[in-house]
Order: sequence, then structure tokens, then C-alpha cells
Amino acid sequence: MPEQPFVFESRVRFGDTDASGRIFYVSLLNHFDAAEAEFLRHLGVAYREIQDRKVGFPRVRVECDYTGALVYDDLMAIAVTVDRIGGASFTLAFDVTVEGRNAARGKVTIVAIDRQTHRPIPLPGNLRAALETYRDGSSASSPM
Amino acid sequence: MPEQPFVFESRVRFGDTDASGRIFYVSLLNHFDAAEAEFLRHLGVAYREIQDRKVGFPRVRVECDYTGALVYDDLMAIAVTVDRIGGASFTLAFDVTVEGRNAARGKVTIVAIDRQTHRPIPLPGNLRAALETYRDGSSASSPM
Amino acid sequence: MPEQPFVFESRVRFGDTDASGRIFYVSLLNHFDAAEAEFLRHLGVAYREIQDRKVGFPRVRVECDYTGALVYDDLMAIAVTVDRIGGASFTLAFDVTVEGRNAARGKVTIVAIDRQTHRPIPLPGNLRAALETYRDGSSASSPM
Amino acid sequence: MPEQPFVFESRVRFGDTDASGRIFYVSLLNHFDAAEAEFLRHLGVAYREIQDRKVGFPRVRVECDYTGALVYDDLMAIAVTVDRIGGASFTLAFDVTVEGRNAARGKVTIVAIDRQTHRPIPLPGNLRAALETYRDGSSASSPM
Repeated sequence: MPEQPFVFESRVRFGDTDASGRIFYVSLLNHFDAAEAEFLRHLGVAYREIQDRKVGFPRVRVECDYTGALVYDDLMAIAVTVDRIGGASFTLAFDVTVEGRNAARGKVTIVAIDRQTHRPIPLPGNLRAALETYRDGSSASSPM
Repeated sequence: MPEQPFVFESRVRFGDTDASGRIFYVSLLNHFDAAEAEFLRHLGVAYREIQDRKVGFPRVRVECDYTGALVYDDLMAIAVTVDRIGGASFTLAFDVTVEGRNAARGKVTIVAIDRQTHRPIPLPGNLRAALETYRDGSSASSPM
Repeated sequence: MPEQPFVFESRVRFGDTDASGRIFYVSLLNHFDAAEAEFLRHLGVAYREIQDRKVGFPRVRVECDYTGALVYDDLMAIAVTVDRIGGASFTLAFDVTVEGRNAARGKVTIVAIDRQTHRPIPLPGNLRAALETYRDGSSASSPM
Repeated sequence: MPEQPFVFESRVRFGDTDASGRIFYVSLLNHFDAAEAEFLRHLGVAYREIQDRKVGFPRVRVECDYTGALVYDDLMAIAVTVDRIGGASFTLAFDVTVEGRNAARGKVTIVAIDRQTHRPIPLPGNLRAALETYRDGSSASSPM
């Protein structure tokens, strides 16, 4: 993990809340969607660049634990880390804090597929390289 | 207008509400999306049938007035009527009531386009015919 | 598990899909929200009944595996089972099929809290009883 | 109208798109929700500040015309202007452009209500003053 993980800031919007007065649990995952896109852009492998008519990137698994309150207008800091890099898929982890207080932690697994056959294919080389570089960030920056 | 307009029943879900305790105004429009699909299915021209690689049906205008409270678990009756049939577009109107009480009224305008050029094209014949038949329903069924 | 689990039918709406042509992974969870509400209504313990100013039912964990394609207008059968009943929480499992084909499987954990203190409290007795009866449905109907 | 209207930048997220490959028409309105919140914050009258247990701000009308394509990852510039200031309500207008190209234009009307009675009440003084100052921005800065 890099010493400074990528952090995406995102606000809880009024439409994200529910009648409990807090964020609706599903709505938080839309912020993960945004964080994922900005994270990959930050790595130089934005979906719009690497996605084409041949390759798609469906999500095949999501999980999230909600550990603290998130209310209207909270400015969330969503730290993104690389949890796992597989042959045809990778998993990102999202840590949500508000003013340093933990609020949620989730993971999303994305698989690369051939859009014609809908079958998994090896992760594109530049995506894999970018994920590995980011994951190994802290060791790479260490003296030896 | 037919004597008995098509009515789509749909519930206000927890995720539809916001911190005010009522439905989030945007969320109601997702129910219109469902009502529109079921209305066209009812007419025998479901999008899945008439939509193909050549023709698309983007919405080009929406409007909605919110006139009464809608809260969690309310069972909405959404009456759908044909407001206007143009050359390349049509407008549906949605009347939302809960136990006979008015809650909202909206309209959505849908245009037929060529998916290649993204330019408007004449409404498919079967769609136009179905909309006209529905709109003229009450007079068609009256003896004279 | 009862021999006949409760099944909630729900359609993939146009707004649920994304540019991949399939359901957006987050959108499926809104259907779980609806399935959960209808399941509890089926058990006679609808949230609107058992929820009051004192007790709330936030979701504290969600997970979902997406195992098959879900596209516009698919009619999903969402079978709901009781995965776990704890002291202050319970977990529901959702099995999504389309025409008998597996499409997704998820779980949601709901905790009962005191709305003043936001601390977990024992599950209301009628909710616990209903969940247990449902879970034990098949054995209850067996001779011994 | 001020010479420099407030502009909120917001990206089209993957979850905002639909199977047409463009933004789902309802999803754009969630960006208006965010633009409205940031606009009022910019004016110094953020909802979190002026909203309390007595006053609520439901939206009573929305309309939007979709005039151009919006696709995944587009960075929208949403210019916000004050369309109307009434006794108990106000209307904001939203102009959406992508790289200078018009994509949509909408309006949302917000009413101030007493949360107990759910009846309209005069707009809070600081909100009204801020809206008026913003609306009159350009004339205020003119020589006479």
C-alpha cells in the first residue's frame, strides 16, 4: 500500500439520505462508483481510455460494512486501495471516513471480459501495471 | 382518453425517501419510468419489442408537480394517459394518487431517433397506432 | 428453510441499466430493498408496523455476487431466505434468477437500534418470532 | 443575473448511464440536487445551516429539457441562476454544458414549509436576501 493512498472526496447529497435521516445504504455504493473511476483516472488508466468495443469491466462482487453514521452534507473521504490483483480481475477497497471518524468500508471486484463472448480475459497490461505500481507504492519508494 | 386509464401500482420504497421523511422528488420519476414501460407493454408495443439497433427512444423533456405527501410504503396508483402524439415524439402524462388523494402529476416526452445519426425519425407505425387507439379509447367504444 | 421460499418478482427497469447494456450493479440492491420490505410484510411484520419513533432498522452490511447477465426488462425472481438470526440483528439472503437461470446472490444484515442512542437493542419479539417461524418452516411441517 | 453565474462541475458516472449509452434522464436531476446544495452553500445559506426542526424545503416542481448527448465521464458545467423569488418559494434554473456545448436546461422550484403543519411559510430572511443579491449581482456591480 502506498504511504499516501488516493483519497476521493464526495458529499452525502440530500437524495442519498433516507427517512432514517442517514445515508441510504445503497446510495453509498454510488460514491464508490465515482471513487473507482477517479482512482483509475489518477492511475492513468481511466475506463474511458482502456475500455473499447472489445473489453468491458463488469463488477462481479460488492460488499460493504457500515460502521458509523453518514448524514446529509457530510464530506466523505474515500481512501482507495488495491486489495487483490488476479488474472482476469481485481478488487478495490474503499475506506470511508468523515472528519477522521470511520463510517464504512467496502470492496468491489471488477473483472475484464470480452464483450462478444462475455468471458473473462486477462487484465489489460497497462491496467495491471498501474494497479501493481500503486499497490507496491510504499515499497517502491523505500531506499532498497 | 379511455374511460378506464391504465393504472400502474408502485410502492414508495425506503430508498426512495429522503431525510425529510418523504419521497425524494427525483425518485418518483423512476416510478414513471416503470409506469411508462408497463403502459407500453399493456398497449402491445413494449420497448423490448419495438426497440432495435436502429431505433432508440430517448426522453427529451420531463416535468412534474408534487402536490401531496408521499411517504415510505405508500402504494401509489399511477394513471397513464397520452398527452400528445407528434410526428417523431409523444408525451405521456402520469397522475399519481394514494388512496384517491392526489400526490403528483408529471409528463414525459419521448422521441424516436435513428441510433446511427441520433436524429428524430417518424414514430414506428405500430407504436403510433397503439397510442392513438388508446387515446381515442372512450370515443371508439361509444356507440355513436 | 421453508420448502417454498418467499419469492418477490421485480423487473429490471431502463434506469437500472448502464452503458454496458446490463443492470448497473448498485441498482440491483434497490430491488433487494423492495424484496426485503415485501418479505417482512409477508411475515406480518412490515417495517411500517414495527418501526416507531423508538426503534430503527439500519442495514449494517451488504454483499452481493453477480453471477449472470441481467438486462433491461428481465423479470427477476428474488427468493428471500433467513440466513441468520442474532440477538440484535438478522441477515436475509436474496437469490436472483431469471427464467430459472442464476443471476445474483446477496445478503443484507439489518440491526435493530434505539433511535435515541443509536445503540443495538434486542430484536422486537414479533419480528424474531416471525423470522424463526419462517426459517424453521420446512422442519415445522415435517412429522417430527 | 450576475455576470459570472455560479457553476457547479459534476461528472456523468457509470451508474448514471443507461443501456442507450447515454445518461439516464432521471439521473441528471441528481446532479441538479448537488448543484442546488453547492449553490446555496456558495451564497452562505447552505441547507444544513438554515434548515432546522421547524422549516423544511421540499421541491414542488421540476422540469428539464434534454437537448444534447451526455455520456459516461462527461464533465458537466452546471450554471445555476435564480429564475424566480416568490413569497414562500423560489425557482432555480440549471444550464448544463459540456465543453461549451448545450446538453440540458432545467428548473426546480423549492418551497419553504413549516414542518409541523406542512404549510408554506415566508422564505427565511437570510435566504431571500442571498437569492436577491445573487440575482441582482450584475446590476449591483454596474456604475449606477
